[in-house]
Amino acid sequence: MRDPIRVLILGTGQMGAGIARHVLDTPGLELVGAYGKRRERAGTDVGHAIGLERDLGISIEANLPAAAERTRPDIAIQATCSKLDDAWPEIAVLLRHGISVISIAEEMAYPAYRSPAIAAEMRDLACATGAAVVGTGINPGFLLDLLVITLTGICLTVDSITATRVNDLSPYGPTVLDAQGVGLTLEAFEAGLRDGTVTGHLGFPESISMIAAALGCVVDRIEQAVEPIVSEVKRKTPFVTVEPGCVAGSQHTAVAYRDGEPFIIFDHPQQVRPELAGIETGDSIEIVGTPGLRFTGSPEIPGGKGTVAIAVNMIPRILAATPGLYTVAELPVPAALAGGARRTTAPVGEARRHA
Amino acid sequence: MRDPIRVLILGTGQMGAGIARHVLDTPGLELVGAYGKRRERAGTDVGHAIGLERDLGISIEANLPAAAERTRPDIAIQATCSKLDDAWPEIAVLLRHGISVISIAEEMAYPAYRSPAIAAEMRDLACATGAAVVGTGINPGFLLDLLVITLTGICLTVDSITATRVNDLSPYGPTVLDAQGVGLTLEAFEAGLRDGTVTGHLGFPESISMIAAALGCVVDRIEQAVEPIVSEVKRKTPFVTVEPGCVAGSQHTAVAYRDGEPFIIFDHPQQVRPELAGIETGDSIEIVGTPGLRFTGSPEIPGGKGTVAIAVNMIPRILAATPGLYTVAELPVPAALAGGARRTTAPVGEARRHA
Repeated sequence: MRDPIRVLILGTGQMGAGIARHVLDTPGLELVGAYGKRRERAGTDVGHAIGLERDLGISIEANLPAAAERTRPDIAIQATCSKLDDAWPEIAVLLRHGISVISIAEEMAYPAYRSPAIAAEMRDLACATGAAVVGTGINPGFLLDLLVITLTGICLTVDSITATRVNDLSPYGPTVLDAQGVGLTLEAFEAGLRDGTVTGHLGFPESISMIAAALGCVVDRIEQAVEPIVSEVKRKTPFVTVEPGCVAGSQHTAVAYRDGEPFIIFDHPQQVRPELAGIETGDSIEIVGTPGLRFTGSPEIPGGKGTVAIAVNMIPRILAATPGLYTVAELPVPAALAGGARRTTAPVGEARRHA
Repeated sequence: MRDPIRVLILGTGQMGAGIARHVLDTPGLELVGAYGKRRERAGTDVGHAIGLERDLGISIEANLPAAAERTRPDIAIQATCSKLDDAWPEIAVLLRHGISVISIAEEMAYPAYRSPAIAAEMRDLACATGAAVVGTGINPGFLLDLLVITLTGICLTVDSITATRVNDLSPYGPTVLDAQGVGLTLEAFEAGLRDGTVTGHLGFPESISMIAAALGCVVDRIEQAVEPIVSEVKRKTPFVTVEPGCVAGSQHTAVAYRDGEPFIIFDHPQQVRPELAGIETGDSIEIVGTPGLRFTGSPEIPGGKGTVAIAVNMIPRILAATPGLYTVAELPVPAALAGGARRTTAPVGEARRHA
């Protein structure tokens, strides 16, 4: 029996807690520490912080360098933030300790989009200390990018890609609902768009950049639009009530142009209680090309569970990678750890051996 | 402008011809030679052999070592055979010249299934000469394995996997039709199964082995069955006529057991003119797990075009790999070469750098 893979979790919010629980459930993984930004949570036992009924004997630490130094993890999973500017300082601390990082920050899906300079610095630091970094998640990180890229692999030519994700926001709490403007009047929604409190989906440019990079082509420009989804009926969740005429969510679209023509089209309506408006949720990818193809799934892949899963499933892939900064499309695809986690994915009888 | 990637094609049958045509159509690739087993075709210009109306100034060569030596390709694509025993001697010649290989032989999708010894020898030879080898294709190589593995990447747990491919054999010629027993009487079909002339699909054990390896688990045993699809109506294609009461194709199923329970279930009915029996073709993957998911596409991904595409799209991935033997699940997924082929997939502004 080999030593388990030592995992440090950054963030114990909804995603961080889910990841920590899944690490605890997965043979071959050992949760060795937890970092939390909020100093008032420091010292709390992780077991309670992530919704278990028991102590784990691991306290949340608010000092990241100290946590990294003390716990000496093989891998850190970052679930503290969405923006590259917030993610990078934490990642830099980890890389300086030679610790590889999986981040679910949306902008880490393709960090060179927001900042080629930070991405280059991250890559150089990772290479210098022998670590590897990747950003992942359900979206960006899978449905609208990795899965799309995978499906183009069987195409001779690709004229355009249309991907649609129709999802249900009902399971989510205030942070997500506020960002989508759920429950607002039309006027408040428009004001929120202007002042940045209503954002729609984070990650379209990152997904588009990842697809373009994988297909080896250049997009001229990206146009995005966020429109309110106005409800005709009353919709209620534990966290919000939407009155008729108010906003049940937002319809976020993006179009990336290639040689002046639409090349990648994303449509992502997110709302609470879509069934009350007769809307079926689901994921769909359509490629116009040779051969053309369309894959659909309904209901939609649940974003929360999916993100927890892909973050943990990525562990063997990033540990097997040579040092550097990766997008998910530059590593072998993650797979469910049905047999537990191992340091290499090479199974018994398998014949690969790196020279 | 970099030097184009030099491609040698092995085999100029239907698949080899399609691959050669696509290589010619793809910027960044150069077709430098063609090997054909049949000595009577040696000396024929490749242009005519692959259905073009023009000479390419490249003759089909029946001596593989000489062709490898003379053309000095960066990559060879093997489209000569289905079986590992036939594929390996050709691959060995190429590896001894340090040439990396993409094979569409079905048994090369996971060569360690048929022969761990040959797979180990192949790996060692590749490592010794600095080359890399991968087996691919639409099936095995994508629909029932790589795409399945990719979808498990967003699952916390996987209880079972069911993948179905319902396809139309009408576009295919005698080789494929004979292997599926199309046009035979029931008695002749059963006799064909016994004497090995009717085989059903080749590749289920390879796909199952690839999935199990990626998920890090072990399957106890694999049960396969091939049943005739008996037509109630007359069905006709340019190559075959099926009388009512005769065989329109075969229904090949496989079940892989894990801890005594069905874990991977494949169902693959193949027949000519399925629409005459009211059957809709398509591909479907269902995962029972957390979260459960189901993705479907209809009609089915065309096998011929898909295999040609994935073989060529794999070129940048295998050229970027360190020496060794790979399954498609151990490399980053191939993507359509929408911007032409390049020696590395790292785009401008992209931040990875191997140490």
